[in-house]
Amino acid sequence: MTFIPIYSDIEKAHKIVQKYAHRTPVLSSSSINKIVGGELYFKCENFQKVGAFKFRGACNAVFSLSEEDAKKGVGTHSSGNHAAALALAAKMRGIDAHIVMPENSPVIKKKAVAGYGAKITFCKPTLQARESTLAKVIEETGATEIHPYNNFNVIAGQGTAAKELIEDSGKFDIIIAPVGGGGLLSGTALSTKYLLPNCKVIAAEPAGADDAFRSFKAKKLFPSENPKTIADGLLTSLGDRNFEIILDKVDDIVTVSEENIVAAMRMIWERMKIIIEPSSAVPLAAILEGKIDIKNKKAGIILSGGNLDLGKLPF
Amino acid sequence: MTFIPIYSDIEKAHKIVQKYAHRTPVLSSSSINKIVGGELYFKCENFQKVGAFKFRGACNAVFSLSEEDAKKGVGTHSSGNHAAALALAAKMRGIDAHIVMPENSPVIKKKAVAGYGAKITFCKPTLQARESTLAKVIEETGATEIHPYNNFNVIAGQGTAAKELIEDSGKFDIIIAPVGGGGLLSGTALSTKYLLPNCKVIAAEPAGADDAFRSFKAKKLFPSENPKTIADGLLTSLGDRNFEIILDKVDDIVTVSEENIVAAMRMIWERMKIIIEPSSAVPLAAILEGKIDIKNKKAGIILSGGNLDLGKLPF
Repeated sequence: MTFIPIYSDIEKAHKIVQKYAHRTPVLSSSSINKIVGGELYFKCENFQKVGAFKFRGACNAVFSLSEEDAKKGVGTHSSGNHAAALALAAKMRGIDAHIVMPENSPVIKKKAVAGYGAKITFCKPTLQARESTLAKVIEETGATEIHPYNNFNVIAGQGTAAKELIEDSGKFDIIIAPVGGGGLLSGTALSTKYLLPNCKVIAAEPAGADDAFRSFKAKKLFPSENPKTIADGLLTSLGDRNFEIILDKVDDIVTVSEENIVAAMRMIWERMKIIIEPSSAVPLAAILEGKIDIKNKKAGIILSGGNLDLGKLPF
Repeated sequence: MTFIPIYSDIEKAHKIVQKYAHRTPVLSSSSINKIVGGELYFKCENFQKVGAFKFRGACNAVFSLSEEDAKKGVGTHSSGNHAAALALAAKMRGIDAHIVMPENSPVIKKKAVAGYGAKITFCKPTLQARESTLAKVIEETGATEIHPYNNFNVIAGQGTAAKELIEDSGKFDIIIAPVGGGGLLSGTALSTKYLLPNCKVIAAEPAGADDAFRSFKAKKLFPSENPKTIADGLLTSLGDRNFEIILDKVDDIVTVSEENIVAAMRMIWERMKIIIEPSSAVPLAAILEGKIDIKNKKAGIILSGGNLDLGKLPF
């Protein structure tokens, strides 16, 4: 594998991913199309295993390991979708997943990860404690660390969502993805620019967590500082490997208000009758806010996932 | 058409319905299957036009009219999904839909029906006012009244959902539908018993609106009296035409608690990432409550629709 995945890496990833993951449907809504004046196609990763695109990258990373490395298991620190995705992928390969979770993680998330058979180590809820605890676990077990996004196999795996979207729905003028750590966006850009060189790739980010937007405009990586957004999947800082691909392949990054994220989420729930998490609503929010012009254009949108606490809805 | 639709009526209805309605997907969930110990297939009428199975029946009724009758339009009194369904079907045929709505109907419902171009007449919110206002509108316009469920063309149209379910997913041991007025249930029973004579047809009803259960057990039609349930699509009384078919073709009717309706609804939202209305959750509630045994069996469930007020969720 080269330093940046090339399209053959994504093809290789897809051979693995399609064995274990769902080929999720692409849906559209004539009433939303009428509202926005363009033709939107939603790639429904909310229907993916573990409820998020994260399973693609985790799956590719786990099944790309040599037999010898695989025996020692995999590890990560995460309290979110990546932890569940890595745990399930490891279970499918029959190897250990060592997950470091902050001790104050929601019970529902602890249960989900434990339910996939992962070995959980709890730590204090600081980045430092998470990293040092993971380092110790890895030293003791020899497990391979699988970073949630700053990892080439993960990036190649995430790129399979856009590949399927294009294979299933044909040419697009624009493909839009949300951006957090940048795993989904960098994979999406690699697939799209290879398959449809003239298609624009645009990322949408909450204004309250705009490190990717600022980094992209300055061509210099800024970390996420005190981010605040309902789109809890997009709080993390961009990875440097993701940033390199994003600078090279992404056409633009735009930011959106919290209000429009909630409005877009509600529109998709009400009109399409599907459950998406707030992060998934960010691309449509950018369209509703007038930040991306899709008038009379055909646009693909990656819906990142559908995991959220139904007891804490914003409407 | 005979007094009870025969299978050729449903086939005829399907020729119409498949021209104008969505062939909705059939989904299943490995995690729900694990919980219930059987194999469940959900026919997703929440993805149907206007968000409910009601469009099938309305569509068949509107397009079965002679040219001469059609010119004078159609009419109904309804504040729910049938009003929207009839309005859209009439719009597709290019004829008038006269909808009588109680003046206290929610603004969102008034807007939805108006949005499909229906001619709305408001009346006092009593059954008497609804019926007398509709009678007047029909006398003035010559429109054909299309009852929401006590109508053979409507019943034949609703039967196309089970027909598609069986065509797409093969043999079933049991097919389960919710029961309110009985349009969906009678259509489902007609299709199922013709296509799969050995398949059981079971209806699930909220205990707080159990007129169908009581009527079925006594073999005598009782009206719904002061019904109270979150499953607002199931408040109405059984129609006599529906009841005749139900007595002949349905194997059993069971009742479920409000608590289990909410639990089943949440389970489908969380595990399947799709939005269903409370009425749709009643069949799964019956399984969770132990009222229908599906252990090691293959069961089809009709999800009736996905229309509800996101601002008033029960969790």
